[in-house]
Amino acid sequence: MSDDVILLAHGSGGLLTHRLISDLFLRHFADPVLAAQQDAAVLESPGERLAFTTDAFVVSPLFFPGGDIGRLAVCGTVNDLAMSGATPRYLSAAFIIEEGLALGVLERIVTAMAEAAREAGVAIVAGDTKVVGRGGADGLYITTAGVGSLSGGHALRTDAIAPGDRLLVSGPVGDHGLAVMAAREGLPFHPAPVSDCAPLGGLVAALLGACPPGDVHALRDPTRGGLAAVVNEWASGEGVGIDLMEDAIPVREEVRAACEMLGIDPLHAACEGCLVAAVAPGSAERALRALQGHPLGAGAAVIGGVTADHPGRVVLTTPLGAHRLLEMPTGELLPRIC
Amino acid sequence: MSDDVILLAHGSGGLLTHRLISDLFLRHFADPVLAAQQDAAVLESPGERLAFTTDAFVVSPLFFPGGDIGRLAVCGTVNDLAMSGATPRYLSAAFIIEEGLALGVLERIVTAMAEAAREAGVAIVAGDTKVVGRGGADGLYITTAGVGSLSGGHALRTDAIAPGDRLLVSGPVGDHGLAVMAAREGLPFHPAPVSDCAPLGGLVAALLGACPPGDVHALRDPTRGGLAAVVNEWASGEGVGIDLMEDAIPVREEVRAACEMLGIDPLHAACEGCLVAAVAPGSAERALRALQGHPLGAGAAVIGGVTADHPGRVVLTTPLGAHRLLEMPTGELLPRIC
Repeated sequence: MSDDVILLAHGSGGLLTHRLISDLFLRHFADPVLAAQQDAAVLESPGERLAFTTDAFVVSPLFFPGGDIGRLAVCGTVNDLAMSGATPRYLSAAFIIEEGLALGVLERIVTAMAEAAREAGVAIVAGDTKVVGRGGADGLYITTAGVGSLSGGHALRTDAIAPGDRLLVSGPVGDHGLAVMAAREGLPFHPAPVSDCAPLGGLVAALLGACPPGDVHALRDPTRGGLAAVVNEWASGEGVGIDLMEDAIPVREEVRAACEMLGIDPLHAACEGCLVAAVAPGSAERALRALQGHPLGAGAAVIGGVTADHPGRVVLTTPLGAHRLLEMPTGELLPRIC
Repeated sequence: MSDDVILLAHGSGGLLTHRLISDLFLRHFADPVLAAQQDAAVLESPGERLAFTTDAFVVSPLFFPGGDIGRLAVCGTVNDLAMSGATPRYLSAAFIIEEGLALGVLERIVTAMAEAAREAGVAIVAGDTKVVGRGGADGLYITTAGVGSLSGGHALRTDAIAPGDRLLVSGPVGDHGLAVMAAREGLPFHPAPVSDCAPLGGLVAALLGACPPGDVHALRDPTRGGLAAVVNEWASGEGVGIDLMEDAIPVREEVRAACEMLGIDPLHAACEGCLVAAVAPGSAERALRALQGHPLGAGAAVIGGVTADHPGRVVLTTPLGAHRLLEMPTGELLPRIC
């Protein structure tokens, strides 16, 4: 089917829609609940409490070093579930496809979604496909929603963040944003930034398992707006101050170089396989070791802490000992990054 | 804010994104779980079994007689949950907005979503907003996902359909499809078709409550592809034959007139506030009365039945007594109808 393209009729609910669903989605996602093709997936509830989230993905280009829109659409929603302390279980996926998209391209993306779902241990149990005319979408948009289990697990809320908490990141920041920017603009960086796009359920489980219950106060994946947006949301949302040590924040050399050339602050650039954790001070060392012991957290670092001083503000200490405010990002930043 | 328009920066994850969320979405959806603004909504599980579904909405134009993309996005997903026999409980909503959309337009749509959610008895607990550049979307696309409760309720599956079943519709077919087509093309029909867009959870509850457990075999809302797609899916999917009496199928006069002018078969046109039911023969009368006794089912009718003859085929008996095959719709039909 790789020579063919998506037609408006693939979205009409008629014969071509049914063929597309059977030949592509059901085959790759290979889930019995999905294959039942009922109006809704019927599932065993994963426990007394659920986590539920959604994200739309409009990344441009559709493919970039380290991933594609399909892998991103699975990891993004899985990670939002994981950040609440939930075990990701079920995903839905809704596709808005532009007429003319090559079926071979769609198949590569669907294959990547299936692989990412296996990696994350989630089942894609519900879906929808719409087709819009040429010019109606930029190739393909995917919206995923996810359901996770909170039974027996930690339910994390940012209001648990308190002065004294240590802040950790699980790896270098900005990889995803710069990988997408470089791919979009065709910039010849060597080495090229590679997206960190990965499902973080396992990393979160390792972290939570290593710390006494309640000592991991909050988790967040720094996607749009990057690390700067997360720490500013925490500072203003919880009325605390945040201090960061600039030279403790891991940034890959190739990302730093790309940022300098493009005039982008790496702290504003998106990650898709990295988390920020606020941890009780007594568990910071334990948390760091747990992250570093996981393949997706090898580059973890303690980057600062929470303070009762300067509530609502994030203060960055530069390598030379100067202080500057790290503001909430404004303006267009990096559009279409996820 | 009605003079303003959506900018790329509204989707950047920075300051304008936060303002849009607080000033628009949180205010209208007014849900404490949503307002907590965590990465995932944390919910009490609605029971031991869940229904989970998603739909993307790309309807053009955004507003049409009887509804808009917001009302449609709530009703469509609520109805998919209801068709499985579930009680709709929680919704997520992801917005893909084109740069330049008037904030006043977005606010009207969000207001309509909030109203439809109240009507349906569901809470909008999770959301996401992305902005794409001019030309990147046709104004606005909305993808909703929904979670419903199946505890204590009937879990409906189309494989319960059996020869002897009676088929009912809850009201006239094709209203939604023709309302959208007429609005899109600016066709001056008098009276103009009006979309039937409505949440059907209450109608389903009335129907299931009136029949002995297990006697309502399957429900489906005939959206894309209309009644013809539903009955053909049932016939081919379950290996049964279906007989329909053409003059028993309710079609409003204005819809029939519009269909004739446009060369559209009303049985191919979408409904968004109507259901098709396959009911055990002994409960058909009871089911009909239950539907007719509900405000959204006043126009209900028995339209045919399931047979062991001609498996996989749908045979329509015309008012003159002739028989013709009602095929699965093919081709482009009515694009961008939902």
